[in-house]
Amino acid sequence: MPTSADKPATVQATPMDQVAVRRANLALVLAEVRTAGPASRADVARRTGLTRPTVSSLVGELLDRGLVREADLRQDGSVGRPARRLELDGRTVAALGLEINSRYLAACSVDLAGRTIQERRLVHDATEEGADATVRALAVLTRELLDHATRSGARVAGVGIAVPGPVAVATGRVYAAPNLGWKDVPVAERLREAAGLPGETSVVVDNEANLAALAEWETAHPGVTDLMYVTGEAGLGAGIVAGGQLLQGASGFSGELGHIQIDPDGDVCACGRTGCLETKVSLPAALRTAAPDLLLAEGSGPRAPWGPQEQAAELLRRAAAGDPRTLSGLDEIGRWLGTGLSVPVNLLNPRVVVLGGYFAAVAPYLLPAAMREMRARIVAGDEALCRVTGSLLGFGAAVRGAAGVIVKEVFADPGRADSGRADSGRTDSGRTDSGRTVR
Amino acid sequence: MPTSADKPATVQATPMDQVAVRRANLALVLAEVRTAGPASRADVARRTGLTRPTVSSLVGELLDRGLVREADLRQDGSVGRPARRLELDGRTVAALGLEINSRYLAACSVDLAGRTIQERRLVHDATEEGADATVRALAVLTRELLDHATRSGARVAGVGIAVPGPVAVATGRVYAAPNLGWKDVPVAERLREAAGLPGETSVVVDNEANLAALAEWETAHPGVTDLMYVTGEAGLGAGIVAGGQLLQGASGFSGELGHIQIDPDGDVCACGRTGCLETKVSLPAALRTAAPDLLLAEGSGPRAPWGPQEQAAELLRRAAAGDPRTLSGLDEIGRWLGTGLSVPVNLLNPRVVVLGGYFAAVAPYLLPAAMREMRARIVAGDEALCRVTGSLLGFGAAVRGAAGVIVKEVFADPGRADSGRADSGRTDSGRTDSGRTVR
Repeated sequence: MPTSADKPATVQATPMDQVAVRRANLALVLAEVRTAGPASRADVARRTGLTRPTVSSLVGELLDRGLVREADLRQDGSVGRPARRLELDGRTVAALGLEINSRYLAACSVDLAGRTIQERRLVHDATEEGADATVRALAVLTRELLDHATRSGARVAGVGIAVPGPVAVATGRVYAAPNLGWKDVPVAERLREAAGLPGETSVVVDNEANLAALAEWETAHPGVTDLMYVTGEAGLGAGIVAGGQLLQGASGFSGELGHIQIDPDGDVCACGRTGCLETKVSLPAALRTAAPDLLLAEGSGPRAPWGPQEQAAELLRRAAAGDPRTLSGLDEIGRWLGTGLSVPVNLLNPRVVVLGGYFAAVAPYLLPAAMREMRARIVAGDEALCRVTGSLLGFGAAVRGAAGVIVKEVFADPGRADSGRADSGRTDSGRTDSGRTVR
Repeated sequence: MPTSADKPATVQATPMDQVAVRRANLALVLAEVRTAGPASRADVARRTGLTRPTVSSLVGELLDRGLVREADLRQDGSVGRPARRLELDGRTVAALGLEINSRYLAACSVDLAGRTIQERRLVHDATEEGADATVRALAVLTRELLDHATRSGARVAGVGIAVPGPVAVATGRVYAAPNLGWKDVPVAERLREAAGLPGETSVVVDNEANLAALAEWETAHPGVTDLMYVTGEAGLGAGIVAGGQLLQGASGFSGELGHIQIDPDGDVCACGRTGCLETKVSLPAALRTAAPDLLLAEGSGPRAPWGPQEQAAELLRRAAAGDPRTLSGLDEIGRWLGTGLSVPVNLLNPRVVVLGGYFAAVAPYLLPAAMREMRARIVAGDEALCRVTGSLLGFGAAVRGAAGVIVKEVFADPGRADSGRADSGRTDSGRTDSGRTVR
């Protein structure tokens, strides 16, 4: 996760005992090797300010844990014993990301270097199937990716799960997922049981927009401390990074942007209120406005020929071809989007707003009207205006963010990274002893 | 400043060298003495997990710096040499808080234990006087409080300044204060020069609502990680604490809540837009709605008999006496306030919303309607609903928060606390060498 360069170092309210110091320094050395590329122990010592013996000891531990490796000897013609170069051994540890969407299940595995090992997406109606069957399907997917990662020599450090609803992150429990009709589902605990994950394997659950925000932040805007991610699909979701940290809210309910009343004379929303932003800019609203025939073609259920990605692609195709209805429709969506975005931009003063979901596909046709509307509504004027940009990860942002949370855990505490090595990925049954602690 | 008990410790991206470790431990020991009350060195060692020799050395430094003192020997009848008890020596260091308001200048000095040393408030029209004369008047006030604190034996560690507008906190420069008609004023630098503050004395400038939020957080809600402070005066201001830190935004413009469009058919706002929340719930709007005769009695300029505090007190008096116009007017204000607050509450999911300014005085008459309206508009339902409560500090919150920032600096880095001891408070002229670095 990016850290803010201009934030003052915080003083920790815990004793700086030797264990904590060593753990922090282990993370520091690993981060140095990761970001600065191949480096000698002397380079690392110089850049971190740590002593040579300390660096040697820490590097030894990182080598033991398989997190770094020694590269070929330097061939630079220098005399004497050549220094060994250290580099991140990204392939030894993997992280799994999963996503429960109302229309599909998605999964990916990445290694510590951020390379994708495997990606899977399958049609699944989580609303119709319900929570139990969905978690079982997710467990099958998990085992598949876990076994593949294990066969390719990586140890799976943990599983991140993106869900479309507010989450109690500490327990991995989904309060409610309105689009799925779920209420109070302990997703982390159930998946751990169903997939037979050992207790040492981290299982983290968070809201899809939060995880997508993390993925966009790390991938495209690592130096930015204040960023908002807004995704348009069946509904509207927002993930907020403020002051260099993901904003969770007091109880996991932050980021609710879709039901700002934007037009008191507007349509009744699915939530029962009137004129919500969602009624103006969600994907169904965009189809109604810009391409009503696609809405008719959608049919019902996830097996309909037009999923959200295909609908977004078709909107883009028509706009690029100059279809007047599509262009004027997207211009109208852009106006409402700019009006809606001006509210959190005035409150939070982000540097960047990233548009995800279908917004990302058609961003070039939304942005002119959206920026015009925002400029008129940002109280502090152009100095407080932010950049608005389409997501690079598109519909894949949430699942990448879910895996990224696990990668981040490993880099934050490399000493924990080989826990679970003994049994992770070696359990063939879908069950384990119950009662294991869920993170 | 409160820290979150349930937040994971962050790993610092700096080497944990001995200097940093000692600084962190010095802060830790001082915090322990401060919060746990009188304690022996052995108590401190046990509670912090630090070794006895380390604690003794750190306590020695804190004694040298005059931040702690040894209390009377214990009289508990135990045999052997009695342990000396350590306690915070709050009286040795003072912090100044200043506030530039459109109708007054305020100042206070507090000691490290949070006790008020002095409070001053004087009528001043910063709009009419302009930035230069206002900073000069503020400098006179600063010298007065500084000299008083010095005479009473305290060293002034720094000066915090609250201003009604967005601030570049790193440089102490006010971008713009619309109510004052100020633009781009380097307040920290100018006050340092005009008051002859030595370079080592911290000068911190921030938005009044941000500083008031900090004061309310520390005073009344120290365990809460997500809090919003909303103040109603001539305009509307908000300060946001999210994830255990004050939210500044990318460039100091966060907290703009007053110009959410809440009624597209409403009045034209001073900002030129239509139906802003401010047009519904500011103090002038409340007077128009609930007590129009007070608006007439207000006259113009700060020397009018009815300042904002007197107007708020009169609103409260009438409501308490059961005046029907006042009651129905405040009920209407409450409805608009609840509608407006539901937007940031949906976005940020705070645990508590604190109402400041005139809202605090009449909170009991605003809250029933406000809570009804919020309950109807919080998307995640009652689980995401927050507590809304009147400020305890009222119009004095900003100036307390400004002093509190300086106190916090001392506790965060006690080793820095005697810088400036040599000359702070001993300069009699109002000028120093120019070009001193402004924090």
